[in-house]
Amino acid sequence: MSQRPETPLLDQVATPEELRRLKPSQLRQLADELRAEMIAAVGVTGGHLGSGLGVVELTAAIHYVFDTPRDTLIWDVGHQAYPHKILTGRRDRIRTLRQGGGLSGFTQRAESEYDPFGAAHSSTSISAALGFAIANKLSGRPGKAIAVIGDGAMSAGMAYEAMNNAAAAGNRLVVILNDNDMSIAPPVGGLSAYLAQIVSSRPFLSLRDVAKKIAQRLPRPLADAARKTDEYARGMAIGGTLFEELGFYYVGPIDGHNLDHLIPVLENVRDAAQGPILVHVVTKKGHGYAPAENAPDKYHGVQKFDVLTGKQDKGPAGPPSYTGVFAEALVAEARRDPTICAITAAMPSGTGLDSFQKAFPDRVFDVGIAEQHAVTFAAGLAAQGMRPFAAIYSTFLQRAYDQVVHDVAIQNLPVRFAIDRAGLVGADGATHAGSFDVTYLASLPNMVVMAAADEAELVHMVHTAAMHDSGPIALRYPRGNGTGVALPAVPERLAIGKGRLVREGKKVAILSLGTRLTEALKAADRLDAQGLSTSVADLRFAKPLDEALIRRLMTTHDVVVTIEENAIGGLGAHVLTLASDEGLLDAGLKIRTLRLPDMFQAHDKPERQYAEAGLDAEGIVATVLTALRRNSVGLAEGARA
Amino acid sequence: MSQRPETPLLDQVATPEELRRLKPSQLRQLADELRAEMIAAVGVTGGHLGSGLGVVELTAAIHYVFDTPRDTLIWDVGHQAYPHKILTGRRDRIRTLRQGGGLSGFTQRAESEYDPFGAAHSSTSISAALGFAIANKLSGRPGKAIAVIGDGAMSAGMAYEAMNNAAAAGNRLVVILNDNDMSIAPPVGGLSAYLAQIVSSRPFLSLRDVAKKIAQRLPRPLADAARKTDEYARGMAIGGTLFEELGFYYVGPIDGHNLDHLIPVLENVRDAAQGPILVHVVTKKGHGYAPAENAPDKYHGVQKFDVLTGKQDKGPAGPPSYTGVFAEALVAEARRDPTICAITAAMPSGTGLDSFQKAFPDRVFDVGIAEQHAVTFAAGLAAQGMRPFAAIYSTFLQRAYDQVVHDVAIQNLPVRFAIDRAGLVGADGATHAGSFDVTYLASLPNMVVMAAADEAELVHMVHTAAMHDSGPIALRYPRGNGTGVALPAVPERLAIGKGRLVREGKKVAILSLGTRLTEALKAADRLDAQGLSTSVADLRFAKPLDEALIRRLMTTHDVVVTIEENAIGGLGAHVLTLASDEGLLDAGLKIRTLRLPDMFQAHDKPERQYAEAGLDAEGIVATVLTALRRNSVGLAEGARA
Repeated sequence: MSQRPETPLLDQVATPEELRRLKPSQLRQLADELRAEMIAAVGVTGGHLGSGLGVVELTAAIHYVFDTPRDTLIWDVGHQAYPHKILTGRRDRIRTLRQGGGLSGFTQRAESEYDPFGAAHSSTSISAALGFAIANKLSGRPGKAIAVIGDGAMSAGMAYEAMNNAAAAGNRLVVILNDNDMSIAPPVGGLSAYLAQIVSSRPFLSLRDVAKKIAQRLPRPLADAARKTDEYARGMAIGGTLFEELGFYYVGPIDGHNLDHLIPVLENVRDAAQGPILVHVVTKKGHGYAPAENAPDKYHGVQKFDVLTGKQDKGPAGPPSYTGVFAEALVAEARRDPTICAITAAMPSGTGLDSFQKAFPDRVFDVGIAEQHAVTFAAGLAAQGMRPFAAIYSTFLQRAYDQVVHDVAIQNLPVRFAIDRAGLVGADGATHAGSFDVTYLASLPNMVVMAAADEAELVHMVHTAAMHDSGPIALRYPRGNGTGVALPAVPERLAIGKGRLVREGKKVAILSLGTRLTEALKAADRLDAQGLSTSVADLRFAKPLDEALIRRLMTTHDVVVTIEENAIGGLGAHVLTLASDEGLLDAGLKIRTLRLPDMFQAHDKPERQYAEAGLDAEGIVATVLTALRRNSVGLAEGARA
Repeated sequence: MSQRPETPLLDQVATPEELRRLKPSQLRQLADELRAEMIAAVGVTGGHLGSGLGVVELTAAIHYVFDTPRDTLIWDVGHQAYPHKILTGRRDRIRTLRQGGGLSGFTQRAESEYDPFGAAHSSTSISAALGFAIANKLSGRPGKAIAVIGDGAMSAGMAYEAMNNAAAAGNRLVVILNDNDMSIAPPVGGLSAYLAQIVSSRPFLSLRDVAKKIAQRLPRPLADAARKTDEYARGMAIGGTLFEELGFYYVGPIDGHNLDHLIPVLENVRDAAQGPILVHVVTKKGHGYAPAENAPDKYHGVQKFDVLTGKQDKGPAGPPSYTGVFAEALVAEARRDPTICAITAAMPSGTGLDSFQKAFPDRVFDVGIAEQHAVTFAAGLAAQGMRPFAAIYSTFLQRAYDQVVHDVAIQNLPVRFAIDRAGLVGADGATHAGSFDVTYLASLPNMVVMAAADEAELVHMVHTAAMHDSGPIALRYPRGNGTGVALPAVPERLAIGKGRLVREGKKVAILSLGTRLTEALKAADRLDAQGLSTSVADLRFAKPLDEALIRRLMTTHDVVVTIEENAIGGLGAHVLTLASDEGLLDAGLKIRTLRLPDMFQAHDKPERQYAEAGLDAEGIVATVLTALRRNSVGLAEGARA
């Protein structure tokens, strides 16, 4: 799998400077070698494959034509930037992609001056590029800003907000629309249909068309006239005008794999006197690698794979994933209740809703990359008597925070939030970690926040959420596989705000929220072995808290430790607040809260991330022992301070 | 001021049912009376004036044509819904608008079945209406959903996300674009220019045009052809096609004050076989009331006023507003430093940036209602060496939470967040309260969070933020006027994470964040008078905390109380977490956290809101005394539980 391809030309090109010394006629070979190198590297590391393959030619062309890094190149999402990394001085580390200590799977400012703005969530690139362009304008610096954004990412409101403001940048801003008719899943909605209509009804720009576009270098009135004529000749019915209506010059469509077309078009765009310009480039996801071309969704993100056959390394079979358990449980609920429906923001397979889609195609809504709309749409459904589940990753739900507050919580509407990827996520790193949802949701009045300790609990929680009509409710669960417990034949409706005592002890109490319960139980064993009899509660709810259970454990144990896979302000803060409100700390209590650290943890193996965070059995045991030792010295220390 | 106009026809119309019994020829008189009644009511209560005046005819026409409440009418923002409230059974309470216990200044589900979906933030209506339309479709219920949305609100990405998904609703969805070329401030950006172009280059629809639109009732291919012909005849260059490109049928523009045109057009729209339909209605903000027509920005939101002269009740002059002090301080910084620039999301006057705009027109960016873009744009500016201040109300910053996390905090970019309207806001109520920002910001790694205790502190904090280049920093300050302290001639750069001891005592320590300091000092006086010597610290920073100061106060005082104008998870939670991390609670500490209650507080006078929240001197004193009394019984109580 780790065989290195022959890349004689690429071997001479470590940086864009060196790339720009090549003749145009050499670029085809360079692109082929770049593609081979990328496939070989991802074969070793796993990662995002299809998106990068689709932009090999575009990557080479942009760096060839523009003066990077003085011209600022911003890749939207950044998962398509592996060829870019290879061409910008990082080839020697490309086989460390997504490994601990290795290259990030996305663009990252700390990694290279060729990554002027990091990404990982979609649709931020035009806003960011506009910031660079305007900063250049204000400071009199030369340099253009180029945003490369996919058609799927264009469905996000943020991209539209940025386009609506782009005129101020003039020709300092170039937006390259990378239209592969595919984000992770096939794109949805009016914009997608519109782009397809353009592409299907217009021939690609020829060299002759490209020459025409030089009209844009002319003084404005003349250029406008030329442009209008050009448009009329092409037939106004399809126009390309949506972008023009927002103030862009539109150039395209262009075959994104044809370097003979890409290079002169980009040169014209670079030299145009007018702007901002949107270049509509059509590419094929997975281009040049048959397995990926044929199944672009399966090769969006891959495990290690065999380059020749495309066969992915599946690893040993294990318990079902939380995502899968959620999806099955929801389908079961939907069978029982015709008002249950589901919403995803362009992640039908990531959220497991693809199986719901098969069972109830009318009751699932893929709204595109549009979390804000997804949540308020769900609120509307709920207000009219449906029981909507908005299935959104923790980190992406941040996109809809105001909608959660304003449209759901304030109105106390029973929207169900199924929050996948809660907590640490391993190789995707800090941008995808679900670190804040307990904090930002449990602070909201009316909200109920649950976290599943294992996959059986998740089934109960899906049912509990389905039955909960009195207000909003959220259930969070992590990336990855369950613990292997048996799934319940009949799901149980949990009492809101009631936890469960999993193990009863006398001296130490661990209050756990979510899947860290396994580690809490391990820690309890070790503490018991040291003579510290330990209780473990699975609180189930971060809000409302099981006040009676917490009160009881606090008043009967010497040490209380909370543990959650969430930043400060979540479970621990709520437990501490309850305790101080009730005066349970007045006479002294050794209470500690284990949580995610005050840092954005880099991508790594999950176990190492947990260890770094102190959220494993060892971390729990160490915390308890330290607390007990401090018992005798705490006061003295305090008095010293 | 409180004189009631003569409204003989309106007196007979308490509900839409009764309205629909009128003849079309009576509607003109009804609208005139409705307008007079609304002006008279707002003269008494103050509130939003111009927006409501602009939609008097539209309100009457919609309720006349559609079968509300079975047809679902959703007003975007909701501040233009006063005429709607008068016509939907709430006329008897219209003079209680925005008063404690009275009608909300926005739509509210709890208030009326004619308010199917509440609002107050902009741009949510299409998403919500789509939810209703799809719920009707799935459940086989009749009924259309009508969203009325302003042109300013259309600049928000969320509206675009919803339009991109609207096709699924078919003719169940009607979007009425209320184009008054004005949100609060004049709108900005490409969309606005585009709408202006349509309106200026097309005559209003005539009755003949309206008849043509009946083509839409025909079977699709024929209707499409008719539509196309119609469009070509009108001149494709202006098209109205942006909406059509997203999948809408476009009807317009229509004179929104001409009932003879509005009624038949809306009837056609109601009966159309195809959809979704966007009706482009042109209105004039403040229509029919000369003072408001002539100064629409000044009459957007008003104090009580004299109906005849339009003169607003200014109230007694007081100390300068926090908003004004912020703006002046920022202008001073900008004079010193050419890299300082400012960003507002359609609130140049609300944020005070209009004065910045006058001084440095090139360095202020009004991006429209587009908070997501605003923040990432600021991040781009910061990445390229500018020092941007993103001035966004606390509640609206929720719209950009993911951008704060993903684009600013993870990248540790020095974006300055100037967070106005932090805390309770009085008459605007729960939707506008800035209740969560300390919680949702202080949980983020790299973030610095400050809160100003008075207007002099605000000046220091603006300077401190301007000088802080090592990462993001936020400063929060409330609505309303300062305390009257002298402003510093030269601002001081505060040490990051250092508070100040304002008053030194021995027994009770109050840790205050923000403007509740005044009440903390009052409380200290009262406690002192009872023999409880009280220290008061202005912590200044919620993150990083002044750990040394807090540690010292905790180890030398019997009772520690934190106070902040923010929900759970903010300052109090951070202080408790610090204390438990360090074992400062191990041996006992009477610690209490005062914060906003776990409820969405209704609109009322600020003093009453503070009293309800327990965030005044009385609340502090009561908390301290209770904590001290509990001292002797706390353990017993705990043991009982």
